[in-house]
Amino acid sequence: MKMSRFLVPTLKEAPSDAVAVSHKLALRAGLIHQEAAGIFSWLPLGIRVLKKIEQIVREEMDRAGAVEVLLPTIQKADLWRKSGRYDDYGAEMLRIKDRHDRDFLFGPTAEEVMTEIVGAHVNSYQQLPVILYNIQWKFRDEVRPRFGVLRSREFLMKDAYSYDLDEAGARESYNRMFVAYLNIFARLGLSVLPVRADPGPIGGDLSHEFMLLAKTGESMVYADDRALGLPAPGVPPEDRAELQALVDERLAPYAASDELHDASEYEARVEEGHRMEARGVEVGHIFFFGDKYSRSMDVKLDGPDGQPIALQSGSYGVGVSRLVAAIIEASHDEKGIIWPEAVAPFHVGIVNLAPDKEEVSALANKVYNALEGAGRQCLLDDRKIRAGGKFADMDLIGLPWQVVIGPRSVASGELELKNRASGETVSLGFHDLIARLTQGSAGN
Amino acid sequence: MKMSRFLVPTLKEAPSDAVAVSHKLALRAGLIHQEAAGIFSWLPLGIRVLKKIEQIVREEMDRAGAVEVLLPTIQKADLWRKSGRYDDYGAEMLRIKDRHDRDFLFGPTAEEVMTEIVGAHVNSYQQLPVILYNIQWKFRDEVRPRFGVLRSREFLMKDAYSYDLDEAGARESYNRMFVAYLNIFARLGLSVLPVRADPGPIGGDLSHEFMLLAKTGESMVYADDRALGLPAPGVPPEDRAELQALVDERLAPYAASDELHDASEYEARVEEGHRMEARGVEVGHIFFFGDKYSRSMDVKLDGPDGQPIALQSGSYGVGVSRLVAAIIEASHDEKGIIWPEAVAPFHVGIVNLAPDKEEVSALANKVYNALEGAGRQCLLDDRKIRAGGKFADMDLIGLPWQVVIGPRSVASGELELKNRASGETVSLGFHDLIARLTQGSAGN
Repeated sequence: MKMSRFLVPTLKEAPSDAVAVSHKLALRAGLIHQEAAGIFSWLPLGIRVLKKIEQIVREEMDRAGAVEVLLPTIQKADLWRKSGRYDDYGAEMLRIKDRHDRDFLFGPTAEEVMTEIVGAHVNSYQQLPVILYNIQWKFRDEVRPRFGVLRSREFLMKDAYSYDLDEAGARESYNRMFVAYLNIFARLGLSVLPVRADPGPIGGDLSHEFMLLAKTGESMVYADDRALGLPAPGVPPEDRAELQALVDERLAPYAASDELHDASEYEARVEEGHRMEARGVEVGHIFFFGDKYSRSMDVKLDGPDGQPIALQSGSYGVGVSRLVAAIIEASHDEKGIIWPEAVAPFHVGIVNLAPDKEEVSALANKVYNALEGAGRQCLLDDRKIRAGGKFADMDLIGLPWQVVIGPRSVASGELELKNRASGETVSLGFHDLIARLTQGSAGN
Repeated sequence: MKMSRFLVPTLKEAPSDAVAVSHKLALRAGLIHQEAAGIFSWLPLGIRVLKKIEQIVREEMDRAGAVEVLLPTIQKADLWRKSGRYDDYGAEMLRIKDRHDRDFLFGPTAEEVMTEIVGAHVNSYQQLPVILYNIQWKFRDEVRPRFGVLRSREFLMKDAYSYDLDEAGARESYNRMFVAYLNIFARLGLSVLPVRADPGPIGGDLSHEFMLLAKTGESMVYADDRALGLPAPGVPPEDRAELQALVDERLAPYAASDELHDASEYEARVEEGHRMEARGVEVGHIFFFGDKYSRSMDVKLDGPDGQPIALQSGSYGVGVSRLVAAIIEASHDEKGIIWPEAVAPFHVGIVNLAPDKEEVSALANKVYNALEGAGRQCLLDDRKIRAGGKFADMDLIGLPWQVVIGPRSVASGELELKNRASGETVSLGFHDLIARLTQGSAGN
């Protein structure tokens, strides 16, 4: 993509009401545009990151055997009356009346809708387990939305729901989602710790949060540092016991957030040299809640013995739009964002220092075409502005690699390659540069 | 995908309130689930079709130089007050108050939001032309929603908006979108005719509708039949005059819907042998409306001479969710849906007639793995139900190809291949079958 035909409205200063670093940087790098408190439009760079995260989440859900559906944003109030949550949910629920004065709401989550679908369309216990997921916009009318897309009112969430005949089956589905989450965060290039969590208003007795470590995180995390840096587990094992062993192994090192932290257990179980106290941002949350919704919504199947059984369920959320901000919180410096390769809006930024000079532009286009031809997504800065502005913008928007091309490159045949994360710079000839940027790297 | 792990809740009969054939078939084939009048969930087969259409629309927008953004579903009422449309829009607009009693609405379209973004972030006439598009859920609170996703209240629309400094530029952007639309419908495998249209409440003086020919369509279309079957034009020409010539050529044959049909012009211009009178479904609509919104919303840029100029704009819609239904209207028979290859939820359906027999299942899996390995998406019916039900379901869900595998296939080494559209059946050995289904065909 050429920057002259794209829309990257960078800013020198963030508006004064942006306090979180991810909010400031998302506005300054031209990722988002605020429409109202807690409601944002996604500008061209922002939607590219959002879509990449969404696709990684989708692929890992599919690999774990979950099946995608898509629920409407507008839900019937009656479903929530049936589950008993319509009144409980309070002012955070955006309540809506249609032209016929019927009660609707903008879905903040979808336990009711999904459970009703399963009740209508799953006819035999032999079809179980069923895990359905939905990547859709949700709305929660927070009193004081803040921190940009880290805590917005309208947000994109992947929510999955599992349905099993018994608790052992439901725990297997829970474990399958647990492993899928480890895979998602590993692919995103993030340090994420699963911690035991309070099931809270959704109810149930088993729950984990996934905390992304970030200096500016909202919660404290206490952990054994050996819980970090473990490899992605890959496709969840088919065998139930093997799957449980894998989950147990990942949960063996101590890890807790504020809420459930037990200082004496922590000190007893973790040697001093391995104690880690850090801030974190919640980027995923999974719950097992048994038959709470299937019972209240009367969704039953005949079991193998012919007796009707209320299904055992869990729900599994990942904040897709929130992750855009969480990743910035975890990965930035004083100059701007540093995108992990897997979610970077483009892999390589090419700075043409002299777009008026034909030979320089020809060389910049040659690099652009060679990299794009090899599947590397490039953003070519061909704007007619001064070099300092181009360098500052490139650091701000945080593409993993920068190639700088000017009149001297044409004269010497050497191009400058900079790694955004390390700041390291090397001079390379055309072929070496292309080879360096196209071999063995993570791709899109 | 194995059907036993998927969710395809087929029905023998459609609910009696479904009257349109696409509505009946979408319910019977398990594509959608009705949540409320005009509000639907997309079940696993349905979302696959929806996503494929969305991706083709996205790719053709990108090829034509449009840039993707993503707008929120919830919009501020104040923006619509500024343009003057808040009161005009009437009861079809879903009006919402948040917890602080501020006025919002669920966007039925996005001229206001997009124009405000352009005003905020495009700073120089040198950045023009700008064409931004947005694939997002919209809501129009129809009095009597009907015909399923052909005319639902919550629907997925691709809406693009162009911004130019003068009318000649705006016409070029309009023409670019016109060509992109021809490409979209050609890739979808559809017979779509562009017809002159009444700009209606959006205003402006140039507008075309794209009508998909379908026996059950809601409008009449009168056309010269030589307007049909033209090849996709491909990437729109860069040169303005060349682009205009291409559009003029495509619009030269007579084509009009009810509204603007002129019988005497029709009879004068089209010889009797070429007159075509058919029913059609509107699947796209493009408008040029000049400076209507940029003026009312005060979005101006300094022109080359330093004088502020209100931008010239058009808007360009494709009903993505509506297309799912429109395609069914255009492509079905008494047994069910006949998906065009490009949007079929899977390319090949594999019917395992004896999932209890190990050798038959081994052969079915071998075919499945060979085709999936070659990039053909397969749905393997491994359910333990009678053969008649499997055949009926496979015809109903309408995958382009069916492979039938039973005990006789194991004995003879011959597999039965059926083309869903023609009904033609051939017997082929394993290697010939794989070759037939993987060579040269359109892919996903």
